[in-house]
Amino acid sequence: MTDPGFDDVLAAAARIAPHAHVTPVLTSRTLDALAGASLHFKAEHLQRIGAFKFRGACNAVWALDEDEARRGVVTHSSGNHGAALALAAKGRGTACHVVVPEGAVPGKLAAIEAYGATLHRCARTIAAREAMCAALQQSLGARLVHPYTDPRVIAGQGTAALELLAVQPLDAIVVPVGGGGLGSGTALAIAGASPRTKLYVAEPAGAAETAASLACGKRVTDFTPDTICDGLRGTLGAINFELLKAHGAKALVVDDAATLAAMRLIWTRMKQLVEPSSAVALAAVLAHREAFEGQRVGIILSGGNVDINALVAA
Amino acid sequence: MTDPGFDDVLAAAARIAPHAHVTPVLTSRTLDALAGASLHFKAEHLQRIGAFKFRGACNAVWALDEDEARRGVVTHSSGNHGAALALAAKGRGTACHVVVPEGAVPGKLAAIEAYGATLHRCARTIAAREAMCAALQQSLGARLVHPYTDPRVIAGQGTAALELLAVQPLDAIVVPVGGGGLGSGTALAIAGASPRTKLYVAEPAGAAETAASLACGKRVTDFTPDTICDGLRGTLGAINFELLKAHGAKALVVDDAATLAAMRLIWTRMKQLVEPSSAVALAAVLAHREAFEGQRVGIILSGGNVDINALVAA
Repeated sequence: MTDPGFDDVLAAAARIAPHAHVTPVLTSRTLDALAGASLHFKAEHLQRIGAFKFRGACNAVWALDEDEARRGVVTHSSGNHGAALALAAKGRGTACHVVVPEGAVPGKLAAIEAYGATLHRCARTIAAREAMCAALQQSLGARLVHPYTDPRVIAGQGTAALELLAVQPLDAIVVPVGGGGLGSGTALAIAGASPRTKLYVAEPAGAAETAASLACGKRVTDFTPDTICDGLRGTLGAINFELLKAHGAKALVVDDAATLAAMRLIWTRMKQLVEPSSAVALAAVLAHREAFEGQRVGIILSGGNVDINALVAA
Repeated sequence: MTDPGFDDVLAAAARIAPHAHVTPVLTSRTLDALAGASLHFKAEHLQRIGAFKFRGACNAVWALDEDEARRGVVTHSSGNHGAALALAAKGRGTACHVVVPEGAVPGKLAAIEAYGATLHRCARTIAAREAMCAALQQSLGARLVHPYTDPRVIAGQGTAALELLAVQPLDAIVVPVGGGGLGSGTALAIAGASPRTKLYVAEPAGAAETAASLACGKRVTDFTPDTICDGLRGTLGAINFELLKAHGAKALVVDDAATLAAMRLIWTRMKQLVEPSSAVALAAVLAHREAFEGQRVGIILSGGNVDINALVAA
């Protein structure tokens, strides 16, 4: 597969339809009043495994040919992508191998195992992780499904915006950005389905390499993430950067305090339990009121996998 | 108005339609598997003011004649009913007076004031509260809207079950019970719309006077509530008891630990931020698996007004 395009998003939508939820679009009068805009929240925290990541993983798994499916898939994400790939592989009856570093959160690993994946532990370094992945690809013939640079993952993530645009004309869509899978998939969906809709990617100040990359026209990878948005600490992928740049996406940077305030608004006003990485998009809209005033704005609530034990005192 | 009936629920549905939300019905594969039943959650935490209480208050306010509407309404609830009556009255341009005891939660009072109601503070005793209400009724000609014994409030609360039954045939409906407004309204809705659907009221063990009342056929009022379900500490009303008894409702008692576990399931699996008083109904279904196995069960998620500051450490 070469660089993915709008046709791949359409193909992904058809491929994942029997397995993924068409998530609802939520609205809130209170938040509309705060933003001075008409906000349309795509509720991907209600997607299977609690995050949009199921879309891309599901597309990658069901796009395998029979031979590939027999050999299985491998990845190195211990977060939502790991859980998503495990559940998607389980649905097809395909083996799933997840390489996890020492010190990964036990609750997340338990979830991945519960979906039937095999965990492979390695040292914390990127070198150790890549070596373990390569060894599994070679010994098992398993196919690597990268969390955000895999073209089928990108096309799958684009289906969220495709669904959103099908029910609601929008002036702008704002999505969180970490590695850029959702952002670049959304760019493809917009290009094909609604070219005059603007694309914004919202990024935590403590991991703002996408904003830096788009500003200087060259991918910046030298940074140390420091943000509570644990889903957005990854480094923008090369293909993701190229797709965002080609589309003319704009980056909006917000600090963690604004993201936590936005998360609290979503919790208390919309009663939706989203994770901080989801709230960064609303935070960006509220922090840049002038850019969105009077417009119809789509916001993708990317996931809801909050560690309740860490947040709740009881 | 004499005892309310099914016609009053239908009238309420028509009356509140321009003002209240038709809330969605949510499902969860994980919770279905845990319960061994098909669960249909009526999302009243997504109702305006974040609770079903808006239905009854709205019906009471819009049923006033012009003369009554000019004189205003009064109540003595500093919880969801107070907020609901304030917002409903604001919608009609009617004055709303809320009698609040010393020591009421400041956040809840701020919400009631934000909806434009006038607060009247009194001592903590029931006598002081009733005297203050009576004085306001007399001096202003304001109409008392009791949180759960007012017939129009009961009819309004019945509209949640009416909506639920209109989209989903059910073998049983389970609702939380405190004063009994939602339970008795649901009884009226079932009697008219789906007589073969069984009605269960779920009650915290620390305030189980409804179970005691239904067991001995006589209203029990001598108890001291001790439960985390702050919305369910009220005493079952006389009219509510008669309606529940006449309908043959069954009470299910659950302890707070089971309710907290159920709340956590709703938070983590459904990503819906509901308050403990909502979760008691799911807790009852899970604790009485044998009564519901294989059935289609409606559960009314009554509200989502959690005090996040009390729950979240950050």
